[in-house]
Amino acid sequence: MGDAATGFTLAELSQRFGLELRGNDPTVLIRGVATLASAGSGQLAFLANPRYRGQLADSTAAAVVLRAEDADVAVMPVLVARDPYAAFAKISALFEAREAHPVGVHPSAAIAADAVIDPSASIGPFVSIGARSRIEAGAVIGPGCVIGEDCVVGAGCELVARVTLVMRVRLGRNVRIHPGAVLGAAGFGLAMEAGRWLNVPQLGGVAIGDDCEIGANTTIDRGALDDTVLEEDVRLDNQIQIGHNVRVGAHTAMAGCVAVAGSARIGRYCLIGGAAGIVGHIELCDKVTVTAMTLVTHSIHEPGEYSSGTPMMENRQWRRSAARFRQLDALARKVNGQDKENS
Amino acid sequence: MGDAATGFTLAELSQRFGLELRGNDPTVLIRGVATLASAGSGQLAFLANPRYRGQLADSTAAAVVLRAEDADVAVMPVLVARDPYAAFAKISALFEAREAHPVGVHPSAAIAADAVIDPSASIGPFVSIGARSRIEAGAVIGPGCVIGEDCVVGAGCELVARVTLVMRVRLGRNVRIHPGAVLGAAGFGLAMEAGRWLNVPQLGGVAIGDDCEIGANTTIDRGALDDTVLEEDVRLDNQIQIGHNVRVGAHTAMAGCVAVAGSARIGRYCLIGGAAGIVGHIELCDKVTVTAMTLVTHSIHEPGEYSSGTPMMENRQWRRSAARFRQLDALARKVNGQDKENS
Amino acid sequence: MGDAATGFTLAELSQRFGLELRGNDPTVLIRGVATLASAGSGQLAFLANPRYRGQLADSTAAAVVLRAEDADVAVMPVLVARDPYAAFAKISALFEAREAHPVGVHPSAAIAADAVIDPSASIGPFVSIGARSRIEAGAVIGPGCVIGEDCVVGAGCELVARVTLVMRVRLGRNVRIHPGAVLGAAGFGLAMEAGRWLNVPQLGGVAIGDDCEIGANTTIDRGALDDTVLEEDVRLDNQIQIGHNVRVGAHTAMAGCVAVAGSARIGRYCLIGGAAGIVGHIELCDKVTVTAMTLVTHSIHEPGEYSSGTPMMENRQWRRSAARFRQLDALARKVNGQDKENS
Repeated sequence: MGDAATGFTLAELSQRFGLELRGNDPTVLIRGVATLASAGSGQLAFLANPRYRGQLADSTAAAVVLRAEDADVAVMPVLVARDPYAAFAKISALFEAREAHPVGVHPSAAIAADAVIDPSASIGPFVSIGARSRIEAGAVIGPGCVIGEDCVVGAGCELVARVTLVMRVRLGRNVRIHPGAVLGAAGFGLAMEAGRWLNVPQLGGVAIGDDCEIGANTTIDRGALDDTVLEEDVRLDNQIQIGHNVRVGAHTAMAGCVAVAGSARIGRYCLIGGAAGIVGHIELCDKVTVTAMTLVTHSIHEPGEYSSGTPMMENRQWRRSAARFRQLDALARKVNGQDKENS
Repeated sequence: MGDAATGFTLAELSQRFGLELRGNDPTVLIRGVATLASAGSGQLAFLANPRYRGQLADSTAAAVVLRAEDADVAVMPVLVARDPYAAFAKISALFEAREAHPVGVHPSAAIAADAVIDPSASIGPFVSIGARSRIEAGAVIGPGCVIGEDCVVGAGCELVARVTLVMRVRLGRNVRIHPGAVLGAAGFGLAMEAGRWLNVPQLGGVAIGDDCEIGANTTIDRGALDDTVLEEDVRLDNQIQIGHNVRVGAHTAMAGCVAVAGSARIGRYCLIGGAAGIVGHIELCDKVTVTAMTLVTHSIHEPGEYSSGTPMMENRQWRRSAARFRQLDALARKVNGQDKENS
Repeated sequence: MGDAATGFTLAELSQRFGLELRGNDPTVLIRGVATLASAGSGQLAFLANPRYRGQLADSTAAAVVLRAEDADVAVMPVLVARDPYAAFAKISALFEAREAHPVGVHPSAAIAADAVIDPSASIGPFVSIGARSRIEAGAVIGPGCVIGEDCVVGAGCELVARVTLVMRVRLGRNVRIHPGAVLGAAGFGLAMEAGRWLNVPQLGGVAIGDDCEIGANTTIDRGALDDTVLEEDVRLDNQIQIGHNVRVGAHTAMAGCVAVAGSARIGRYCLIGGAAGIVGHIELCDKVTVTAMTLVTHSIHEPGEYSSGTPMMENRQWRRSAARFRQLDALARKVNGQDKENS
């Protein structure tokens, strides 16, 4: 079997990933991956999105991963996949450069005396780990991470760099967290008393399931009494805000900049579009899709796609529609009144 | 008087917080707090939101804090409070675990020769403090914080971890700042000259009043000439952006992901909903409530609640309304024209 | 020629910046800059925005930079500029305090053996720099920055503090990045297979052109195959999210909290308002202005201003309009139907 340096033959890739190879030379060496538009000699490309089908004829890729129905258009060898994007993802992983993560604790790290670090974990420079926290086998804690008290980082987790687990954060296995993310900060709990805000102590924690991914600068607050929970395989993009006591179901994915207010419950296999908002104390059932920048103001009990907002328009045109929106109730009354008069 | 380890009797809690105790055993020991749904033996719960009243009958809490009008439904001892949420918040604080913050400067910290650190302050690992900055009595500077030049951290402040005060940031007393927050970065001041952007120097600072709270990954830019100001007891949730020269009045609270553009002035006791936007150079009077994801495009002179946006709908239905929004002006003209013809 | 400590005469400023001086004492010393409202003795102010013209009569500024048409109103000496804001920006820079950035590598920094640091660069405390990365002449890497593998920081760049370049990030010359920004994190690439998410390796990098500015807590993901690109002189405010494989044209500026989804292409000289959203795989031509909180859902081929959303209203009024928005299609059908009946 080849490796990333020497390359892999098409025959090897076909066998390894169970993809039908069509083409007359199974010994063609693949040394890298690229887009259809830019792939050259020795590079594998893919075609999944039909909008790029036109690029196939001009592509100089050494081979292409595609669906059976696109195979005839290709002039180069092809690997046929039911889901070319997924197949390409797995092949790409062969060529992914792995950062160096030396096993052991960097001499600069500040580790509490009663923290427990598995000997196979990698603890980078300028990392601090608080009392009673535990880092399990093979976990990578990158430079500048801060792990507070009573946290658990499960086996195989990767905290890329500058991640903060404030306190009582428990990560399952193989969780990946990108730089700047903050988990376990005190939730936003306030009571007004005699004209001043009173902090409501946030005594809960955060529980993150196996295989979750948490984007750069995303924040997940700890619960007030119970925990804030992400079930397994939840995928959060960058700059998402998850309030205290939210629960996110398994396999749900959220695009960047989504805001979820406290105590919302989101089902499994939901897809939340970029910069959408979900208000507090509501429930979304499984398989709900929310389009970008939609504000979800009440519970959703039926799977399906949901939206709010107005279409983008040229500004002067938009101003006219927006001005009419103000008068919409009066307009409707007039129409309905006319209707009564007419009928 | 008890403590968190041994617990507190109901009689002690009643006396300490001025709450009427109803129930036949004032010696019941409270060793912790929990939600109505999950509280068990030795745990105190609360009922403030009427939507959870139904949980009272089934709760196995040792006692419950609630309003007088809910007391009769309870089968367990109760503490009667005018504001059960505030009372519960204060009782909860008895059970809040306090992180260890050793007094003194961690040996790894990098402190400018002319910075002044009160001996009762706690400076964590990997903290850097710049020239002419001052850390006052009892302040806690957590791991990885960066404090630049000419900053003041007032007595009793807590910078949890990885907080950055870039320069000329002055915090009052008892300000709490969560990880990833950045105060005092250069505001976004640009002038276009000959087809290229020119930076406008940001010579002001940031002034934060006593008892403010600033959420994780929230950013507050320094002023261009004067300061950016938060008056006392302002509460900012996570991922809020405050532009240069903004002024936020005392006791105002903002939910996560709010964006406030430069030179806006927000009054006292305002409540700004999640992901709302406030454009620059406008003014909001005191006691303005803005609902989630509203864009505030002009000054508000009357207290009250303000909104923009459209309701969430099933996507296909929404597409029809959205398409009609484009035609709204023509539609209104037609209705008004008909009206004229009809009258 | 004067300096910031001794001040500059009006005659010096006039000559240095090519501004006409009107007033009878060219030896007046300017020792600082301030707003029209607050400037006092020895301070220069400016008038660019006509809404502040009324402050001119009451101002006690020593001198004012303004347009010729405003000069007559002033009682103090004036410097006449075609663009007073740009002129003032350049004069202000004379008074900008410069932070100390000692040349060389702070002893606490953790630098990979094969990283290359120019001797004129300044590397602050608690900085880590990964394998094969290069820091060029005069660059400043502030406290707590993390630079991963295979990065280039061009000459004259400033990474203020706690900036992360994850991997394969190449900065041109004179790029300024504010604290908490994360460049080069893995883009959000997912494929669903057998009910679980599969990560799509993100093999590309990030390329940032000369003179770009990147705000606090802004995130720019690395590309999946090709790079994510900012051309020269792009200006990004705080908390912006740029997805993988986005391309932003030269001289484009974005206000805070904008979200740009993957593979969007934005032209040159565009102005994107605060908290606007741009969906993936679309194209904006040059000189497009997008107003605050607009969602751009399709490509824009004509320069101009574009908007979405509804105007802010008092909440009860808004609720009525919003309720009618739900019925908008039925309303329009009724109007059009009536129209047919009437015609």
